[in-house]
Amino acid sequence: MIKYAYPMKVFYKDVDQMGIVYYSRYLEFFEAARTEMLSSIGLDYNKVEENGAMLPVIEAHTEYKKGATFGQEICVITTITELPKVKMTFHYKVTSTDSGEILMTGHTIHAFTNLNGKPIKTPKYIRDLLANHFNI
Amino acid sequence: MIKYAYPMKVFYKDVDQMGIVYYSRYLEFFEAARTEMLSSIGLDYNKVEENGAMLPVIEAHTEYKKGATFGQEICVITTITELPKVKMTFHYKVTSTDSGEILMTGHTIHAFTNLNGKPIKTPKYIRDLLANHFNI
Amino acid sequence: MIKYAYPMKVFYKDVDQMGIVYYSRYLEFFEAARTEMLSSIGLDYNKVEENGAMLPVIEAHTEYKKGATFGQEICVITTITELPKVKMTFHYKVTSTDSGEILMTGHTIHAFTNLNGKPIKTPKYIRDLLANHFNI
Amino acid sequence: MIKYAYPMKVFYKDVDQMGIVYYSRYLEFFEAARTEMLSSIGLDYNKVEENGAMLPVIEAHTEYKKGATFGQEICVITTITELPKVKMTFHYKVTSTDSGEILMTGHTIHAFTNLNGKPIKTPKYIRDLLANHFNI
Repeated sequence: MIKYAYPMKVFYKDVDQMGIVYYSRYLEFFEAARTEMLSSIGLDYNKVEENGAMLPVIEAHTEYKKGATFGQEICVITTITELPKVKMTFHYKVTSTDSGEILMTGHTIHAFTNLNGKPIKTPKYIRDLLANHFNI
Repeated sequence: MIKYAYPMKVFYKDVDQMGIVYYSRYLEFFEAARTEMLSSIGLDYNKVEENGAMLPVIEAHTEYKKGATFGQEICVITTITELPKVKMTFHYKVTSTDSGEILMTGHTIHAFTNLNGKPIKTPKYIRDLLANHFNI
Repeated sequence: MIKYAYPMKVFYKDVDQMGIVYYSRYLEFFEAARTEMLSSIGLDYNKVEENGAMLPVIEAHTEYKKGATFGQEICVITTITELPKVKMTFHYKVTSTDSGEILMTGHTIHAFTNLNGKPIKTPKYIRDLLANHFNI
Repeated sequence: MIKYAYPMKVFYKDVDQMGIVYYSRYLEFFEAARTEMLSSIGLDYNKVEENGAMLPVIEAHTEYKKGATFGQEICVITTITELPKVKMTFHYKVTSTDSGEILMTGHTIHAFTNLNGKPIKTPKYIRDLLANHFNI
């Protein structure tokens, strides 16, 4: 398993007139978190694209327990629990930094494609890199 | 069943560097579509809040088949297939207006709450209004 | 002068916890309005890019008078008052559809570039097309 | 003068199909930067609202020199050069963290209002707090 904590803060731009983070914003938070997770293990997403692969989202799922509010410090905890073959799944848990309370959870499933959008297998260097971190 | 078609167009603001609509944007499209659907049956969401209820999202799910592109005319087809008791589910299908091809699908599940966020039953006038449209 | 009215509606996604449209959203509304304006005179922005030109924003300006609110019907009135040479300016006025009241105003200035981002003169077919509509 | 540097990173969510940050996103970056600046001098914006004041934007201005790209580390440098009376102006400079190159600049002008949106003078505790930091 690979696990990564991405701390962040809620700003006005994120919050709707109920005073809580608008529901689509979490998908942006997920993206920032998974990008930084991959970067933390040496996998810069820019390099992935330069090497001729893309990793578009094919499925996303979110469950909202408690609304994050303006100014709140939150943490997006991202995990990969399985080595990808053709698909790659990220799990997310957004917690309140102060209390540790879980605010929402979700996952995204991605497929590797070439730059024309045709599905391809997980590139070997990516699989190797992930495998190394699974062994830690 | 209640069914509503919300036609719209993809703009630059929606599209990422893969040249397709960024994955979180569809949740915004869903919101516009379900708001207009409810409005079309006489249920103005402003009135819902004025009457002391809110309808926050508790779950969202999206599956991406083909990316919508800049300038593309698309249609968000929203359906309610069940009368809500405590939860209300909307199903969405985003299609290409030209070809009818399905680009992505999804659903959102909502819970009625009072203005303090406490869960409540579906307000009677809303249930009645929806029931009338189910009978058509 | 070319003038174009783009009617639209404010949704939850646009509104912040003050209950008014978040300030950056108007730049998205401007983009939709100017894209539709150009399209209305036969200038599809996709074609502009296919013909090797881009029209990035080099300056944007907004002045906020009154906040648009959730559910409000608004109109983005876009005008071009001068034929572009190297730069192209769009002026915007966002009004309440009901009252006609001006909610905010703004402008954007764009520069024609080639696909590598190098500044170019306004392509002749674009200048001709705009000129035709100035003569009406 | 008060000066504050807010480092951040560009993600996919920010970038359009030209491969550069979409023009409205910088207004979100500005908001994060000025919120953190105020927070850094002990002025939590939540407290401002709890004390009965709001600080809506009445004018925003942006000038784009070079597009920030996905994965780029950037810095939003915010300055206040004048103590506010009824209006408060923030100046912004977005730079590339690596090269120091200026990517874009802008400013926002805000007015203090009460919670009903009526203009008020800068609350004394805010003016005092800012004044203290001007003297440093």
